[in-house]
Amino acid sequence: MDAIFADRVKKVPRSFIREILKVSLDPSMISFAGGMPNPAFFPIKELAAATSKVFSQAGAVALQYSNSEGNVRLREQIAARYLKEQGITVSVDDILITSGSQQGLDLLGKILLNKGDATLIEEPGYLGAIQALSMYRTEFVPVPLLPSGVDCEALAVSAAKSGAKMFYCVPSFQNPSGLSYEEQVVEKVAELAKKYNFLVVEDNPYCELRFRGTPVSSCYKYIPELTVLLGSFSKIVSPGFRVGWIVAPPKVMDKLLVAKQATDLHTSNFTQQVLAQYLEDNDLDRHIARIKECYGHNCEKMERVLAEIFPAEVTFTNPDGGMFLWGELPEGMNSMELFDYCAKEKAVFVPGEPFYTNDNPTRTFRLSFSCVNDGTIVEGIERLKKGYDTYKATL
Amino acid sequence: MDAIFADRVKKVPRSFIREILKVSLDPSMISFAGGMPNPAFFPIKELAAATSKVFSQAGAVALQYSNSEGNVRLREQIAARYLKEQGITVSVDDILITSGSQQGLDLLGKILLNKGDATLIEEPGYLGAIQALSMYRTEFVPVPLLPSGVDCEALAVSAAKSGAKMFYCVPSFQNPSGLSYEEQVVEKVAELAKKYNFLVVEDNPYCELRFRGTPVSSCYKYIPELTVLLGSFSKIVSPGFRVGWIVAPPKVMDKLLVAKQATDLHTSNFTQQVLAQYLEDNDLDRHIARIKECYGHNCEKMERVLAEIFPAEVTFTNPDGGMFLWGELPEGMNSMELFDYCAKEKAVFVPGEPFYTNDNPTRTFRLSFSCVNDGTIVEGIERLKKGYDTYKATL
Repeated sequence: MDAIFADRVKKVPRSFIREILKVSLDPSMISFAGGMPNPAFFPIKELAAATSKVFSQAGAVALQYSNSEGNVRLREQIAARYLKEQGITVSVDDILITSGSQQGLDLLGKILLNKGDATLIEEPGYLGAIQALSMYRTEFVPVPLLPSGVDCEALAVSAAKSGAKMFYCVPSFQNPSGLSYEEQVVEKVAELAKKYNFLVVEDNPYCELRFRGTPVSSCYKYIPELTVLLGSFSKIVSPGFRVGWIVAPPKVMDKLLVAKQATDLHTSNFTQQVLAQYLEDNDLDRHIARIKECYGHNCEKMERVLAEIFPAEVTFTNPDGGMFLWGELPEGMNSMELFDYCAKEKAVFVPGEPFYTNDNPTRTFRLSFSCVNDGTIVEGIERLKKGYDTYKATL
Repeated sequence: MDAIFADRVKKVPRSFIREILKVSLDPSMISFAGGMPNPAFFPIKELAAATSKVFSQAGAVALQYSNSEGNVRLREQIAARYLKEQGITVSVDDILITSGSQQGLDLLGKILLNKGDATLIEEPGYLGAIQALSMYRTEFVPVPLLPSGVDCEALAVSAAKSGAKMFYCVPSFQNPSGLSYEEQVVEKVAELAKKYNFLVVEDNPYCELRFRGTPVSSCYKYIPELTVLLGSFSKIVSPGFRVGWIVAPPKVMDKLLVAKQATDLHTSNFTQQVLAQYLEDNDLDRHIARIKECYGHNCEKMERVLAEIFPAEVTFTNPDGGMFLWGELPEGMNSMELFDYCAKEKAVFVPGEPFYTNDNPTRTFRLSFSCVNDGTIVEGIERLKKGYDTYKATL
């Protein structure tokens, strides 16, 4: 039977993430591993009200087939929010609704990548992008991520050498590192994109979840003609709806539309209408403010407890928003090995390995602060420290 | 900018279907072109009730991320229905929920097809499958469709010659032809699949919409180990939900799951839960009986009016279910040319051309009977006849 499969899926590595999720099901486990938003902030009542309205006002339309581009009211809301939040003017025609931003990645791979084409990606990089684009047999060219954003010198060298068609980045509170780009880095990336003629694919699911620091511009401000934006309602309203979007220049959009139609015709018309109604009837800013307050509190608490409990040889990033902290162990340690010791103590995280496009062992690891609280933070980090001590004693 | 695109989307033909949809927007037009189910049968009230229940009983879960396989309750309902309706035993683990059955096609292309791999497909064949699989640069090997089902002699020759990995078919009330397989054809296809080692991909969105004749078995009955089933709620509940499924043998399912995760993580958890609740709380058989009554009535009416108004030189299929009739013009005529004459008379259909994997002009055309009524049937067919007469007079 194996001979029947396409080359692109012949070698698929075991998904460590799935293993972690299984381990996390143990109710006695404290998990910093998940990448899920905090369900306490799902606007259940408001979405239920919006849904009732859709059923009573547009039931037959919401339940019928629709166009591939997506619901116009929803796209208008997205365009208005880009203007209000980021000061960028995006036309409704430049927005395609996708089944989560993960699908945006799949569609981009589909329309851009021939086998062996290079893709510039941050190192560490977002796992979902690595998975989606791997399916199109791209050659990843990892570019190191510095505390100020991507390493632009390395980006220039890699762009020149690889002839990559795109650079994929998560400029705000990156998954997994929690790092963000500084303004001059964004400007420099835009300059390099023009010079080397690559698309900047800016994936920004967390950008509205900033709880401190100063917002930075989107690359779109500098090079709209070379920028693709991926967005999602998953982290600010509900991931279960699977509604995201992609903003692209007209020529790219033409191809995306053909790919979208071939892939699933269109994203659920029903959930799109419910979201449009929800956004029209509610104050999203106030809703997001509540999420930010919680995540900001959790992040600060974790930073404090980590600093108190862990020795300085283990370092952590200090994200200004989003859902993730990123740790690094001292030389000679390996986060995959640490994982087993910590799991025995009933606390888990995600080792850095799946976020790299090579198979080298790493010393890094991701901690999520979205779904914890003061109690689980203290107890969980103490357990991690026990695992760390036991591991260290074996070395 | 054009150099940036992948080869698979470099040449994308103009979508004639989109042009037709634009023409259909004219309110004075009578359209037999659409492929949409009749919205009068969307169970709005029942779905609204199911949605309220989901919000109140499982809101936070329904709005959170979920597993790639899909909701277990929904998969149980699907498995139970296969047993009840078709007498086949499908395990819940063999079912993956997809974003419409169109996505099932995309995932199959992704896991099976290298560039240039052959795909056996009925001629005429379903347009959505042609679009989805074209993206994986397959070489289509069309096999003629006869009134009894696919031409098995031709299938044997083509399978032997092409080494195709799969045969894609719509065995009940095919889109576009309305034709169905007879039992001995299904048996023969199963035999050939074993002999030539190809997967039979049985796409059956209309199979529950039989309004006359005797049901035939699924290939799954004969060769479960080589059969992939595509199913959908679009024609029996709501297409706007974009929920379908794929049934596949374990080894194929392993790869499908990886591809599904890379493509969009999972199908909307929310719509899956609403559908599961709807199916648990309602009598789907009774609901489908109402749809069948309407479509059966419309089909018979169209057959009668077509026979009365059109000369015998124009022939039509007599479907036992589904949504489509298929016409064929006499030698020397071309359905694309007929289209323009009929559009001037304010009645439209879909010319056969997009359902063929070659570019030859065709004499065939598709008429949908799902969204018409006695009045529009009589008036619409009279208009088609006027267009036909004008066209004929020019030849």
